[in-house]
Amino acid sequence: MSKYTIGVDFGTESGRAVLVDVTNGREIATAVYQYSHGVIDEKLPDTEIRLEPDWALQDPQDYVRVFKSTIPAVLKESGVSAEDVIGIGIDFTACTMLPTKKDGTPLCDLPEFRNEPHAWVKLWKHHAAQPEADKINETARAMNEGWLDRYGGKISSEWVFSKTLQILNEAPEIYHAADRLIEAADWVVWQLTGTETRNSCTAGYKAIWSKRDGFPSTDYFASLHPQLATVIKDKLSTDIAPLGRKAGGLSEQASQWTGLNPGTAVAIANVDAHVAVPAATVTEPGRMLMIMGTSTCDMVLGKEEHIVPGMCGYVEDGIMPDFFGYEAGQSCVGDHFAWFVENCVPSRYEQEAKERGMDIHQLMEQKASKLKVGESGLLALDWWNGNRSVLVDADLTGLLIGATLATKPEEIYRALIEATAYGSRIIIETFQRNGVPIHELVACGGLPEKNKLLMQIYADVIGLPIKVSASNQTSALGSAMFGAVAAGKSLGGYDSIYDAVRVMAHLKDEVYVPDPEAQKIYEKLYAEYVILHDYFGRSANDVMKRLKKIKAETRN
Amino acid sequence: MSKYTIGVDFGTESGRAVLVDVTNGREIATAVYQYSHGVIDEKLPDTEIRLEPDWALQDPQDYVRVFKSTIPAVLKESGVSAEDVIGIGIDFTACTMLPTKKDGTPLCDLPEFRNEPHAWVKLWKHHAAQPEADKINETARAMNEGWLDRYGGKISSEWVFSKTLQILNEAPEIYHAADRLIEAADWVVWQLTGTETRNSCTAGYKAIWSKRDGFPSTDYFASLHPQLATVIKDKLSTDIAPLGRKAGGLSEQASQWTGLNPGTAVAIANVDAHVAVPAATVTEPGRMLMIMGTSTCDMVLGKEEHIVPGMCGYVEDGIMPDFFGYEAGQSCVGDHFAWFVENCVPSRYEQEAKERGMDIHQLMEQKASKLKVGESGLLALDWWNGNRSVLVDADLTGLLIGATLATKPEEIYRALIEATAYGSRIIIETFQRNGVPIHELVACGGLPEKNKLLMQIYADVIGLPIKVSASNQTSALGSAMFGAVAAGKSLGGYDSIYDAVRVMAHLKDEVYVPDPEAQKIYEKLYAEYVILHDYFGRSANDVMKRLKKIKAETRN
Repeated sequence: MSKYTIGVDFGTESGRAVLVDVTNGREIATAVYQYSHGVIDEKLPDTEIRLEPDWALQDPQDYVRVFKSTIPAVLKESGVSAEDVIGIGIDFTACTMLPTKKDGTPLCDLPEFRNEPHAWVKLWKHHAAQPEADKINETARAMNEGWLDRYGGKISSEWVFSKTLQILNEAPEIYHAADRLIEAADWVVWQLTGTETRNSCTAGYKAIWSKRDGFPSTDYFASLHPQLATVIKDKLSTDIAPLGRKAGGLSEQASQWTGLNPGTAVAIANVDAHVAVPAATVTEPGRMLMIMGTSTCDMVLGKEEHIVPGMCGYVEDGIMPDFFGYEAGQSCVGDHFAWFVENCVPSRYEQEAKERGMDIHQLMEQKASKLKVGESGLLALDWWNGNRSVLVDADLTGLLIGATLATKPEEIYRALIEATAYGSRIIIETFQRNGVPIHELVACGGLPEKNKLLMQIYADVIGLPIKVSASNQTSALGSAMFGAVAAGKSLGGYDSIYDAVRVMAHLKDEVYVPDPEAQKIYEKLYAEYVILHDYFGRSANDVMKRLKKIKAETRN
Repeated sequence: MSKYTIGVDFGTESGRAVLVDVTNGREIATAVYQYSHGVIDEKLPDTEIRLEPDWALQDPQDYVRVFKSTIPAVLKESGVSAEDVIGIGIDFTACTMLPTKKDGTPLCDLPEFRNEPHAWVKLWKHHAAQPEADKINETARAMNEGWLDRYGGKISSEWVFSKTLQILNEAPEIYHAADRLIEAADWVVWQLTGTETRNSCTAGYKAIWSKRDGFPSTDYFASLHPQLATVIKDKLSTDIAPLGRKAGGLSEQASQWTGLNPGTAVAIANVDAHVAVPAATVTEPGRMLMIMGTSTCDMVLGKEEHIVPGMCGYVEDGIMPDFFGYEAGQSCVGDHFAWFVENCVPSRYEQEAKERGMDIHQLMEQKASKLKVGESGLLALDWWNGNRSVLVDADLTGLLIGATLATKPEEIYRALIEATAYGSRIIIETFQRNGVPIHELVACGGLPEKNKLLMQIYADVIGLPIKVSASNQTSALGSAMFGAVAAGKSLGGYDSIYDAVRVMAHLKDEVYVPDPEAQKIYEKLYAEYVILHDYFGRSANDVMKRLKKIKAETRN
């Protein structure tokens, strides 16, 4: 008889539970809960307290409501009995963090801090801690901190210590009132089990922790801010649990929320992107997972430690046990096409889409797919939202070249897709040149489902075959797989994530294979892309930064 | 009692007659005739004979129909008696040329040649003679022909000998059947007077003629093609009439067409752009006339002869008697904005324009005018249709840099306007650096009437005040002025075009004055434009040409 696990995937706007058959990975039931407060970026809920630009908060009770709403729903929809649910795993956006009391109570749930923005959850895309990130990077360079190389030479404003230092700088009373500063990923596991744990994935990728060296030194933290010297001991934890371990059993309270049995195995928390790796069958070096949505996240496993320039980071055991997990990314992919159709598609196209019963992306894809490679004469740099890998430069901007009076919207649309493919190829070649082999690509996320033209262009530009994850909710499936590992073989689960992958993870039959004729022309176009990439991206002409500076000056 | 003249302006789609009061330049009546065959670029009229790409022909009888339709109409509308019309002047697009028999009969009007495309009028924008232009330029360089410098080092595919050589190469029977190869400008004057004349403006700007050196040598023409050696003697004329001279009196036949009296003075033909110069009050060095429409044509008078790189050409007496007339141009101005609103403006903007009762250009102008200088962070190279001056390179293409996910359509629209203003400034600075002073600008054409934001941006970018011609049909007014000069003072006209300007030409009161604050920021943006202009335009990175080559290869 089948056993089941539940994966819960906490996204930016909603949480999603998926109930999965442990014996074959089949997704039996799905339920989604839209956060009641969504992304809080204008005013604190039920107040007139305005947030500064670049702030992005969330309400931690929305996460609890995800459990209360979605788990009963999938049990009901599937007809599966709580008896047969052997485990639960979760994954979360990261770094998404909050200050709590010793018992896990979020500070924002205490009346005295309810009106203090710094008491709330800081969502991953809270970008207001850039001055703190700058300080973190400058200090690390000045002190010659070796860990900086693991993160492509730059710590992001999104990460734990940037956000922590912002709290300390701007709301020291909140910093001091917080007994714990914790990733929301670990906090929701704490809510399920009653026990605080810390996962190695967020610790490694977002909190400068490594299995070999631990956290940065107290000297380093003291140099950032005297009161930050003992932040690890005071508010974090040095007890970092590897992925695949059981965090604990479901508490009585969480049992009441969810309808699952008390004691049900709960896995150590994971990150949405990273947990997709085993769910997409990527368990060995040489295969890169591309999680393609509004942005793209690239994940590669390696047996060896290599410094690869311009990565987001690499963490030992950070994705899968016994491997170095390398992460790179492109900051503007689906967002790019969304911007385009929102701002640059004329009404006669919208009219045509309407008449033909297509959405505008489908129409653009169909028109763009009729173009021959190179026919438009267009080339773009995909930097509408800066460049994450390999240039790690948020101040770069978008470029389109080759336009004529005959240029059509679908030509621009295709050029933007191609630009993201060139950007992806640069990442892959940078891995390869620095000792991390890649010979096959697996894709998951929203885009591969929606845009076949895009997938074929990627295969043609990169020159590697691309397979696609069978699941279209890969992260939730991955969490369910880790739930099965937390339960263990004795209860009907698995003893390792590798065992779970063999049974529960699948690819589609369809493979995107490079077309040799297209490849030949893309070789020439890519060569042009690289010249422009290096000219504008590596300081030969810093016009993009100077234009941004002029722009910033007009705002004063 | 007032006397009147009529100016007839032959455009690309239609001809326009304007009846003007000679005593004050007041435009009393206007009539327009749309050519019944318009631009012939798909099939020869009433046949299934298809034209090759880049061909553009016209029917010479359409020009006659302009006289028959518009002159009676302006007489009727104004109530002016034919007695009081003392002269008529015409201006035409150029180089627009046709093959005729000795008596002026167009070859395409002869039944035996009716189905031969090369027998018809080749319109200025017939662009199929590029191989011939290449041959003309290569041969001139090889033979070290001094006249090449007068044309910025390059003869255009649009000009007389490119089109002539194409006829000889592709339809030698037409070439040999043609007794005359003549500008349509001169041909319509021939139709009015019964006498063939040749004007110095088209001869100088389009047929490599100069007052001092005449035409290129028979040796040179023989090197192009043995049968072309005696083309000047056989089919053109060395009797070139200066502007302002009388071509003859109106013939009996033309009198019947028009309702004007036989013998009415008819001026030597002119070119639409060049004839606008006196009509816009530009009669001395230091003032540049910008004729701003789909493209921009810049006209400057100079007392001295200077080689200015990247000009369209300079001709002694080519615009006004006793001056060197310098011509430069931008190939994509109004066309640029038309392309943008056609291809890049989303439906919500079109909806808003509709609701507010504005046309889409007005809406874009209004939204763009609310932006601060430099606020968008965008910069463009205005090469959507290549670059005429100063790079003289049709293979350059458009570029937009600085785009982000927050970039709005009106920001791109404004960036395109600014790009054409930067392009204009480069032309002005190139004149200034090469001995042709410019200290004031006068604008005419469609754009200055329509887009105040554009005019202010030009003033701010260039840093010079801009005045605007009072007439919005400047070319027709200029032709009417030359009609008054052809009539002469004794008949109530003027003895020179300078006398006519003092009475008949006017500027608007409104002057666009540079705003010092805007100028400061535009200085920075212009510096960035120049860097990109030189990088992409002067062979540091020939990516635009390589993309065009790849594009061309996909068409094979």
